[in-house]
Amino acid sequence: MTRTIVASATKEIVIGFDQPFCVIGERINPTGRKKLAAEMIEGNFDTVIKDALAQVAAGATMLDINAGVTAVNPNETEPPLLVKTLEIVQGLVDIPLSIDSSVTAAIEAGLKVARGRPLVNSVTGEDEKLEAILPLVKKYNVPVVAISNDETGISEDPDVRFAVARKIVERAADYGIPACDIVVDPLVMPIGAMGTAGRQVFHLLRRLREELKVNTTCGLSNISFGLPHRHGINSAFIPMVIASGMTSAIMNPCRPQEMEMVRAGNVLAGNDPNCQEWIMNYRDYKPGGAEGATAGPEAPAAGASRRRGGREARLRQG
Amino acid sequence: MTRTIVASATKEIVIGFDQPFCVIGERINPTGRKKLAAEMIEGNFDTVIKDALAQVAAGATMLDINAGVTAVNPNETEPPLLVKTLEIVQGLVDIPLSIDSSVTAAIEAGLKVARGRPLVNSVTGEDEKLEAILPLVKKYNVPVVAISNDETGISEDPDVRFAVARKIVERAADYGIPACDIVVDPLVMPIGAMGTAGRQVFHLLRRLREELKVNTTCGLSNISFGLPHRHGINSAFIPMVIASGMTSAIMNPCRPQEMEMVRAGNVLAGNDPNCQEWIMNYRDYKPGGAEGATAGPEAPAAGASRRRGGREARLRQG
Repeated sequence: MTRTIVASATKEIVIGFDQPFCVIGERINPTGRKKLAAEMIEGNFDTVIKDALAQVAAGATMLDINAGVTAVNPNETEPPLLVKTLEIVQGLVDIPLSIDSSVTAAIEAGLKVARGRPLVNSVTGEDEKLEAILPLVKKYNVPVVAISNDETGISEDPDVRFAVARKIVERAADYGIPACDIVVDPLVMPIGAMGTAGRQVFHLLRRLREELKVNTTCGLSNISFGLPHRHGINSAFIPMVIASGMTSAIMNPCRPQEMEMVRAGNVLAGNDPNCQEWIMNYRDYKPGGAEGATAGPEAPAAGASRRRGGREARLRQG
Repeated sequence: MTRTIVASATKEIVIGFDQPFCVIGERINPTGRKKLAAEMIEGNFDTVIKDALAQVAAGATMLDINAGVTAVNPNETEPPLLVKTLEIVQGLVDIPLSIDSSVTAAIEAGLKVARGRPLVNSVTGEDEKLEAILPLVKKYNVPVVAISNDETGISEDPDVRFAVARKIVERAADYGIPACDIVVDPLVMPIGAMGTAGRQVFHLLRRLREELKVNTTCGLSNISFGLPHRHGINSAFIPMVIASGMTSAIMNPCRPQEMEMVRAGNVLAGNDPNCQEWIMNYRDYKPGGAEGATAGPEAPAAGASRRRGGREARLRQG
């Protein structure tokens, strides 16, 4: 059984096929967040602190930490900023972190200060990238996210993306890094632009699990790019990727609809023993506006619990 | 490609692997609905009419019609009541119907009056049942729901349930009924009582699709029996069964959360060309209370559309 171990100074988490889905909180990332980027450049970490606490409170399993403020010279400016951000966050919360940067020097600087066993995010199938990142992954004995694109870009052919993933796993093995420390991102295309994007990912996830036996992740919200009511698409995508074997995602845990689908997905995949987490989170659940507005206070609950009564009754005896 | 054709007098629907998920509205069923049963016995069809219209408005693909009011002698009372109910509903709405009864005489009476090509719900693997129902299915040239239990009851072993389904398909073939007219219900156990219930169904659905090449259905809400916030579990179960190959379900279409997951599941399975249905339903979507309450009016939408900015930007170019 593939087990990817990540840890903070005090807390160990296993990513695996028989584990609850690992929610990697994506919020601490200045990409596209101008205000956050400006704050971080000024040395103001108020939003970082707020986002760290909010994501943990919302149920994140890990936090992704990105300090890519797109300054003029990221090789010089990003390493110290990432270090500072990591130190602040790991002083504040006790869950494992993911060190997210496209700058190798920043990843190495982060690895030097991170406590426990962080995840490195990421390496690709590009030779230059592999040669830069894999030695660090080996040296610090940490797991790494492997994005399935290479020098030729991102292939629309899922078989090519699978081949890139296999190449990364094999190259890692050459460095003595086991497959259980490679978390493959099969790359999720926007479904609005490519109608087969969902089926591609479900198929790829199954192959990655059965053939390469690796854990998997993705930038979850990519799937809904360009569509209205993205949270609805994201929410349905979560149980579908869980059913297809995905074991983690980089996502926003502060969205209750998405987190509800993660928790329900864990129940349905058999990874929430005795439905304990579900019951703890929803035993006093009162439907909100969108949900409760449809029918009177009696109709929905009563209707739901007794539909298909005859067969349901038989099943309970069965 | 397996295609199960159902039809009203004026409207044909295809159930199939490449079709939108078929939502069979479950509301017109007096099982466990004392008030509805009492009304129907009195010849009052106000609730039937209300439920028929509401389910169509909510997006049901078909309507299940059950008149099992558990009278003293169902063999005498159920056939005319089912006929009356069918006639009222098919005079009111134009979507195909499912004739739902455990009384053979009621099914035959229903088949005599139903217009188009209704679905018969159901036959089981019990010999007596097969011999009663399959000749009717053949005579009226209609599809039938095949529930995978037999004389020995409902097996907890999914391989046994698969074998029962295969037996029904083979027996139907003996009568000249093609596999595309058998819609197998693999039987969904409550996940709260059996932690493997989800995985069992996902595995069974895949086998039914790949080996027997049949369409499938289930009483969807069984999965969440006994748990708090059942709609959350039901909602996650829908995309998971769609990802596993299920093509229809008997469910309550008047629940917006569940229907949202059906529509998003169709998008993600590639069965909503150009996301047309999704966009039509949600282009003006405003998050309701539960969803919108989490963050300010700006934060969630903006955050959602730009998370993983760098990678997302790359993907859009890819």
